[in-house]
Formats: sequence, C-alpha cells, structure tokens
Amino acid sequence: MASLLHQIQHHSVTIASSLPLDSGQSLPSVTIAYQSYGALNADKSNAVLICHALTGDQYVASDHPATGKPGWWARMVGPGKPIDTDRFHVICANVLGSCMGSSGPATPDAVTGAPLGMAFPVITIADMVRAQAMLLDQLGIERLHAVVGGSMGGMQVLAWSAAYPERIASAVVIASAARHSAQNIAFHEVGRQAIMADPDWQDGQYYASERAPTKGLAVARMAAHITYLSEEGLTEKFGRRLQARDIKSFGFDADFQVESYLRHQGLAFTDRFDANAYLYITRAMDYFDLADPHDGRLSGAFSAAKDVRFTLVSFDTDWLYPTAESRRIVQALQSVGASASFVELSAPFGHDSFLLDVPALDRIVAGALGGGF
Amino acid sequence: MASLLHQIQHHSVTIASSLPLDSGQSLPSVTIAYQSYGALNADKSNAVLICHALTGDQYVASDHPATGKPGWWARMVGPGKPIDTDRFHVICANVLGSCMGSSGPATPDAVTGAPLGMAFPVITIADMVRAQAMLLDQLGIERLHAVVGGSMGGMQVLAWSAAYPERIASAVVIASAARHSAQNIAFHEVGRQAIMADPDWQDGQYYASERAPTKGLAVARMAAHITYLSEEGLTEKFGRRLQARDIKSFGFDADFQVESYLRHQGLAFTDRFDANAYLYITRAMDYFDLADPHDGRLSGAFSAAKDVRFTLVSFDTDWLYPTAESRRIVQALQSVGASASFVELSAPFGHDSFLLDVPALDRIVAGALGGGF
Repeated sequence: MASLLHQIQHHSVTIASSLPLDSGQSLPSVTIAYQSYGALNADKSNAVLICHALTGDQYVASDHPATGKPGWWARMVGPGKPIDTDRFHVICANVLGSCMGSSGPATPDAVTGAPLGMAFPVITIADMVRAQAMLLDQLGIERLHAVVGGSMGGMQVLAWSAAYPERIASAVVIASAARHSAQNIAFHEVGRQAIMADPDWQDGQYYASERAPTKGLAVARMAAHITYLSEEGLTEKFGRRLQARDIKSFGFDADFQVESYLRHQGLAFTDRFDANAYLYITRAMDYFDLADPHDGRLSGAFSAAKDVRFTLVSFDTDWLYPTAESRRIVQALQSVGASASFVELSAPFGHDSFLLDVPALDRIVAGALGGGF
Repeated sequence: MASLLHQIQHHSVTIASSLPLDSGQSLPSVTIAYQSYGALNADKSNAVLICHALTGDQYVASDHPATGKPGWWARMVGPGKPIDTDRFHVICANVLGSCMGSSGPATPDAVTGAPLGMAFPVITIADMVRAQAMLLDQLGIERLHAVVGGSMGGMQVLAWSAAYPERIASAVVIASAARHSAQNIAFHEVGRQAIMADPDWQDGQYYASERAPTKGLAVARMAAHITYLSEEGLTEKFGRRLQARDIKSFGFDADFQVESYLRHQGLAFTDRFDANAYLYITRAMDYFDLADPHDGRLSGAFSAAKDVRFTLVSFDTDWLYPTAESRRIVQALQSVGASASFVELSAPFGHDSFLLDVPALDRIVAGALGGGF
C-alpha cells in the first residue's frame, strides 16, 4: 500500500534554498505540500496557518486523496465555520518528514533517485516550523493573523512563537505540551519497535519492494490510538460488549467490540501513512522540549513573544497531554508578560477531543481569531 | 530461547482427573507446577495460597530458575515476613495456561507428543482456580487460611470466593478488579497482535523450530510495562534524561533512558516467558467479569461468601486497575453482608506498587492473615 500512497499527486512547492536542521545536517532543497482555502487579502494580513498533528496532513478541510474521507478538521475550517474561510486565507502544510508530498524519508535521493529511507536526516519540531516559514516566504506572507494547532500541531505553534514571534499575531495551542513526557516517549518507542521488528521494514528500504511493514505499523497505531482516547470514553463506547454474535468464541478472534475497533484502526491507518514517516515524526515529538535551549527555563523560550496573543485549551479527559502541561506553559507566558487565555474544557473523548464535536472549542477558536461563532 | 525455557524442571503434580473448562472443552488430565514454603501443621489449617499475576510464576520466594533473580514477592513471603513461613504453609502454583511447568500451550499433545500450541483450549480465570482447587485436593488441604493475590492474582482470589467460599477463611485482593475494562482489553489486544504479527510466531507452532516470536513478545511486554507504571513514577525515574553520553544522537538508537529501560524490559522478558502463554493468559484476563454469570450484578458472585473475611487494597497511582474498581467490589461485598476491609494506599509506583517497597501494604497483608508486622 505504501507504494500507492506515494503515487498520489499533491499541490506543493519546491524551494531551492538549503534548509538548516537542528541536527547540524541540512536539506539542499525542500518540498512542502500544502492546501489553502479562502482568498488572501490585498495587504496579506488575513493568513491563518494550521499545523497538523502526528498523523494529520494538509487536507484539513478537503477530502483525503487516499481515503476519500472529509478533511480532518472540516468541522472547524470552512465558510462560516470557526476558522472562517470567508474571512481568512487558511494554509495547512504537510510537515517535514511526513508522507503526503513534503520532503521526508520517501523523498528520492538527488543523485541515485532511490527513496532516502533512513538516510533522510532526523528532524525536529523546530525544523518543521523552519520549513513552514520558508513556505510563507515563498508565498510572500510576512506575518500570520494566527497560527493554530492541536497536539503536535500545538507544539509547532509553540515553536513558532519561540522562533518567529514577530511573524504571528495570535497563537492557538490545543491539547498540547511544551515537552514530551517520559510516558509519551515510552509509547512512541513501543510503536517504533513494532515497526522496526517487522521484517518487511527492511531497514527502511521497503519502498521498491513488494512488502511494506504494514503489520508493525498497524500495531504501532493500535497502541497509540489507545492513548488518544479516555478510559471513560472507551468504556462508554464499547465497555465489555461482544461482537454481533454476542458470544465468547473462546479463541483469538476479535470477540470484544473494542478489539475489532482497534484492529480496524490499525489496518486502516496503513492505507494512508508511511511507516518511516511514523518513525521520523514520533522522534521529532520525543525530542521536543521548548525549554531545552534555555537551560530548562520555559519562560526563556517566550522572551520575545510578549506581543503574541496566546490562547490555550486543554481537555479534562486528556491523559496524553494533561492540563498540567498547559498550565506550565501559561505560567511561563505570564512570567514574561504575554497575554495567555487558558481554559480546561470538559469533554469525554480524551486527547482526541480537539478533533471532535466540542462546541465550546469552536467558540474559543473563533474568538481567538477575532470572530464570533 | 523458548526452547531453553521449556527445558527447566519444575516441581509438579499431574492429576489424572479431567478438568472441565468454561469453554465447554476439558483437559483429560492436568499438570500443576508449584512451590511451597513452611510446614503444613497437623490439622492442615495453616495453608495460604498465593495467586500470581499475568507474568508471575510459582517462584514467589525462591530464585527464578531461568533468570536467577530472587522470587517476585521475596519481600513479602518468608520467615518473619508479612506472609510468615514460620507460621504458614505457603503454596504458589503456576497458573493453568502459563509456561513454568503447568499445563499450557507448550504441553505435548497426548497422542502426537508435539506441543499443543494453539490447540490448547482457551481458558479462564475460573478454570485456573478450578485447577488450583484440584491441586489442594491432591495435597489433602480442605480449607485455606487465606488466599492472597495482586493484579491477576487478585482476580483469582475473587474467583475463589465465588466458586469455593467454604474453602477460604480470608481473601486478600490487591490492585485488582472484578472485570477487565475496555482499555485493559485494548492494551492486551495490542500485545497479542504484536505477537501474532511476528512471522516467527508461525501460528503458535514455533516450539520445534529455531525461531520464536521474541520480537513480537518484546513489543507486547513494552506496551504492557508502560501500563504497570505511573506517569509520575516514569517522570521521577527517567524524566527526559538522555543516556550516559548525554547528547541527542539524531538517530533511532535509544537516546532517552526510558527507551533503553523499556527495550531492556521487553528483551529480558523473552528469556523467561512463552509467547503463546502470553496470548492465553491475557485472553483469560479479558474474559474475566465476575458479575457476568449473575446478570451483571456483582453481588451475585458473592452470595455464598458472607463468611469470608475480605481485605482489599488499591493504589492511588494505579491507572490500570484504579481504586474505583476496588470500591465497586467492596460495595458488592457489603450488599451481601460480607466483611470487607478496604484501603487505598498512596504509593508512587502505579500498578506495580503491589510488588514493590510499600511498608503499609506489608502491615495490611500481615494483619489480614491474623499476625502483626
């Protein structure tokens, strides 16, 4: 399936300038695939950048080219919606290292033409943001009305405010954190080990073969998927309910609805995602600690961001990026005198709440962009 | 390694009677491997049965024959210890379906002599307890002074009180639950899928081959291991600390201490555990719902247990079997008029607290057995 995934055509720009990376390496040129919605106004002051999460992509408000499903934030982005494309020029770019058209491990080597695989350099959240800034330069957009993101998208928003505070008026950080915790790293490591244990992974050089590590990738997705949901949400949705036949098989089929659901989630994911991209992006998240270059003082990251208007949202059932992580960010912002509006919302869906039907979130996002909803 | 594991000699009895199983199948005979400590008194009234957890075994207070490490509850069981072998005759049996000498998927088929593999019938917690009762019959022990267990061991204690309340004076249930939640099932399913995705699993018939699904089993263990620890415990123990060289590799080596720890946990586990046994025992746990045969009313399971003295302990940082599950059991016990002493202990180690240095637990267990400590 990986080969089908890489045959999809995406709208992209290739920038011939070198992209310096946190690792010390650099990419000689960089391709960024992106989607945009709504018209850019004459003075280019109405651009909103949306940053996507680990397994997200640029198809924020358009059908996914591989699955045909609606955009992952179609409920949030569109005409008359909280991020109103009648007012804003919305841009969403596939992150560096991903698999939907931007430079990543499936990118061909400039010399041999073969996919780079594990020869692609390890990247960071700051590298992703540096690439996005290059895209905006290319598009002639100097300053963003807002940069908005949930989960890893929120990490990029925070990295924007640290690296380019003068280029953003407003920053909206949803269900995110300024660092990856030991438990977060541990879950990612399980996923990576599942992929790398799959003999079809072939040290990352599977693109030209008939085999791709879909089994390992599916297991990685299953483990991660549990962390995106709340225990209460799982109980409410599935409890201990058995499949339709309503009897225990006394075997290893998916007896429980939650097993069948997870298996489906794992399998479906392999149709739309590349295993190597999963390795690279989880690594970037693990490396993320915004306080790291400032001797562990998070406020140091925001020293030039006091004119950015921050909005932060956490969810009470999110155990992956719990509310305490958002509070820590708010305290650091307050200590440098930045404007930080923060609310913990009550929603039953765990970390995934930022993607789902939480009307209070719609109102907060619309408000943060200076509109009502 | 699996083949080495199966070469270890264990102390065991083989009972020629048929063991009826919840699945409707039966085992024509059953072998139970067990260890005992301390002398059985003349009237056979001082026997204490300890039930082990998913990956535990009968070596509760003696060195493990494969790893050489001290018994898994050596801190709790021994002369002068909370479960005092100067006073009690302590028995710990390897559960049915496991891999340390009791009947399980590695057991040879009676006719062909080849390991049963997936032809071994799916078993339940009640089946494990039925086999333990047969062992006690064989040993001439009619009634237990106490039955004690943590995690899946606690499930067996609960199943004992439902099936054989007249045979136990005291029941000690630690960090356990009367049913497996949707989230519990989901984590187990990830582990099973990791094992079954490993091509070396070979549909469970790997015993005679040179290959065993150690990579899949290691991934399963890694995922499970995270659930045994608290987020706070992981942060305290590892945080975001890097390995000794203290620099990011910008690669996929174990950069963070927590990664290296998890990889070690996964790998070490494969030296002492059999992948098929992991499948069977996780399945038994998923099927566990003590209220199920009583139209979902948990109190129904305890209708004959009002003369059993129950002691329950939960831990505040245990998110696998949270305190609410223990409270649910206590309420059901109270509704049938059983004596139920319950406390939530504060301990930083998450679910694994029941295995670790928690002095308050020692005192509670000693007290439940009628002694001081």
